[in-house]
Amino acid sequence: MKKKAMNMVIAQSGGPSMVINGSLVGAVRAAKLKECSAKIGKILGARHGIQGILAGDYVDLRKISERRLDAVLLTPSSALGSCRMKPTPDDCRRIFEEFKRLDVGYFFYIGGNDSADAARIVGEEAEKDGYPLVVCHIPKTIDNDLRSCDHTPGFGSAARFVACALKGDDLDSRALGGVKIDIIMGRDAGFLTAASALARERPDDGPHLIYLPEVPFTIDKFVCDVKAAMKKFGRCVCAVSEGIRGKDGVPIGAKLGSGEVDSHGNVQMSGSGALGDYLARELKARAGIKRVRADTFGYLQRSFPGIASSADRNEAYGAGFVAVNATVRLGYKSWTVGIQRKKGRKYDVEYVQMPITKAAKFTRSMPKSFIAKNGHDVTQAFIEYAKPIVGELPHCEVI
Amino acid sequence: MKKKAMNMVIAQSGGPSMVINGSLVGAVRAAKLKECSAKIGKILGARHGIQGILAGDYVDLRKISERRLDAVLLTPSSALGSCRMKPTPDDCRRIFEEFKRLDVGYFFYIGGNDSADAARIVGEEAEKDGYPLVVCHIPKTIDNDLRSCDHTPGFGSAARFVACALKGDDLDSRALGGVKIDIIMGRDAGFLTAASALARERPDDGPHLIYLPEVPFTIDKFVCDVKAAMKKFGRCVCAVSEGIRGKDGVPIGAKLGSGEVDSHGNVQMSGSGALGDYLARELKARAGIKRVRADTFGYLQRSFPGIASSADRNEAYGAGFVAVNATVRLGYKSWTVGIQRKKGRKYDVEYVQMPITKAAKFTRSMPKSFIAKNGHDVTQAFIEYAKPIVGELPHCEVI
Repeated sequence: MKKKAMNMVIAQSGGPSMVINGSLVGAVRAAKLKECSAKIGKILGARHGIQGILAGDYVDLRKISERRLDAVLLTPSSALGSCRMKPTPDDCRRIFEEFKRLDVGYFFYIGGNDSADAARIVGEEAEKDGYPLVVCHIPKTIDNDLRSCDHTPGFGSAARFVACALKGDDLDSRALGGVKIDIIMGRDAGFLTAASALARERPDDGPHLIYLPEVPFTIDKFVCDVKAAMKKFGRCVCAVSEGIRGKDGVPIGAKLGSGEVDSHGNVQMSGSGALGDYLARELKARAGIKRVRADTFGYLQRSFPGIASSADRNEAYGAGFVAVNATVRLGYKSWTVGIQRKKGRKYDVEYVQMPITKAAKFTRSMPKSFIAKNGHDVTQAFIEYAKPIVGELPHCEVI
Repeated sequence: MKKKAMNMVIAQSGGPSMVINGSLVGAVRAAKLKECSAKIGKILGARHGIQGILAGDYVDLRKISERRLDAVLLTPSSALGSCRMKPTPDDCRRIFEEFKRLDVGYFFYIGGNDSADAARIVGEEAEKDGYPLVVCHIPKTIDNDLRSCDHTPGFGSAARFVACALKGDDLDSRALGGVKIDIIMGRDAGFLTAASALARERPDDGPHLIYLPEVPFTIDKFVCDVKAAMKKFGRCVCAVSEGIRGKDGVPIGAKLGSGEVDSHGNVQMSGSGALGDYLARELKARAGIKRVRADTFGYLQRSFPGIASSADRNEAYGAGFVAVNATVRLGYKSWTVGIQRKKGRKYDVEYVQMPITKAAKFTRSMPKSFIAKNGHDVTQAFIEYAKPIVGELPHCEVI
């Protein structure tokens, strides 16, 4: 006897990105394929991740027209809404009651390491309870810190924003001089801040200094580096990760912030200009530089419409598509979609099956080969790694 | 006897914009016309405005290839560099000595109201001294506050950045909720902050509240407005001008900032997250809202490459072209290029001759007809005014 079709739930979790809807649309389009439709009944989108499942808040995604899906694909942020929630065993029981009521056999969760961890917990609890659930995690994070991916959907577009912003900001600095500090997202990993280096076209282009969470930060070295850059370039543009930390390993921004903590234990760092203002103040006081300005890129770098990287959007779509297709047609279970770079001169990726634990909880940092020996720059190896993901950038000319 | 050709000096001043190089390239292209070349010899670009003249720091702009000029046209920020300097009578004497040495008879200065004032001073002092100098001011300002223009080159592109940013940020807020505060440039005039309203596609789209320098700001009303919006929309996105001021007329941001003042008497407000952080803190404390985030758009909104408004770039080019063409061929003197909107349904502008004093020193604010009666929004009249200047925006779809 043919096994009856089960319904699927898909949801988005964690910080939005410019292309996370690509994964949603890719997954929906795969589920609508004739080959999958025999096994998948309803395609339910839960609003605000696990919270929506607990609240019974769903959208029937089969009812969204192809034309609207096309537009959603190009729309930044998480169309289904998001949450930052680590489910307890009790939450999981309630989730399974919901799933049972709705005949749900497939659960797809799009997000970063915390979301992968949430998916892992749901999967493990389902197994304990004997609830027949296939769980698949679809990778997303602008931080690019999943251990399961060569690079993660969302990173390329945020990196594109950062590189473009630094290009413009460097030109602004050429015009008016002084020191400019740009605070860039990335709680634990410096990939996004490192992408600022892609802005450079000429030897004297900024950013002149790049500070990553992977390299212990001291105000003394910072002041010293800036003074040297001012001497060399007559101005100085600094790309600084929001996650820079002192020798004690504690993020400096976390000490200055509101102290807010989410259920995964992450301290709030974004959505405040405190770190930039602190560095600008210290620099003025210690280096006696008159014009020091600080901008914090904040949420713009993950949600700005119209500038996503094409490669990034395609890969986000691909990850979502493969997630559903391989789960339904190849029978993959409790897995995350790993993304690997193919060997060869032409840039391309392939999607591979990996255990969710590979993406969950723990993150990866920038490898040493990407960090310059001086501790305030990146290497050519990083540039070559990031360039095809970010795509071609607008050329800027100076006189 | 035919009058011999004189050399021209062109320079850029004040805050950069995404299209100020359009005016530079337009002016250079006009000067290179056969009809102008009889009267204009060298085309000298002074680096960093008046400072470059005093320092004898020039670029021979006839030597820049057309191909490079094409690229400069698309490059944000001020390719010649900028300054914020109000010339003293003594500075003017030194400028005329330089001009005499270099056989300069034309001076074109691209900038906002302070730059127009600098050009006015140079022109008046030249007349006092009997130095034969034709002065022309070419309008630029993202603040859109020149009294000589229906709208000013630079505004449309900055407004486009702001509207795009708000579109993305509103979607981000839909995903994660709470209150989001976005601080937008505009020292005295609210036009740029008002442009955030162009982000809206649906009735519940943000920004839900818009605060302009033209309407006295009180924390009490702000807290009350946010609470009402939270009740209505379940979330709240606020667009706040960096120039908002209390009933005493003093900008709130200026009280929180570094206290830095330039030679035109402007207090530093940009390049710091202090105002956003202050409002977020107050809101958390007084309204008990848990998730409050603040971003300060900072210098990105005037220098981001690749997203300029086409109308804005064309008009910047047009203003530069007309400036040189009308000065040389029609003999206009001591003038600023006014920009007027043509009557009729199809959007178009014309460039008109105005005395420099019309652009200099004093600025204009948002007219009352553009400000909503509730004091925290704009009117449809503003939307219709701004739309053609900003151009079409990316469509974003929600589910």
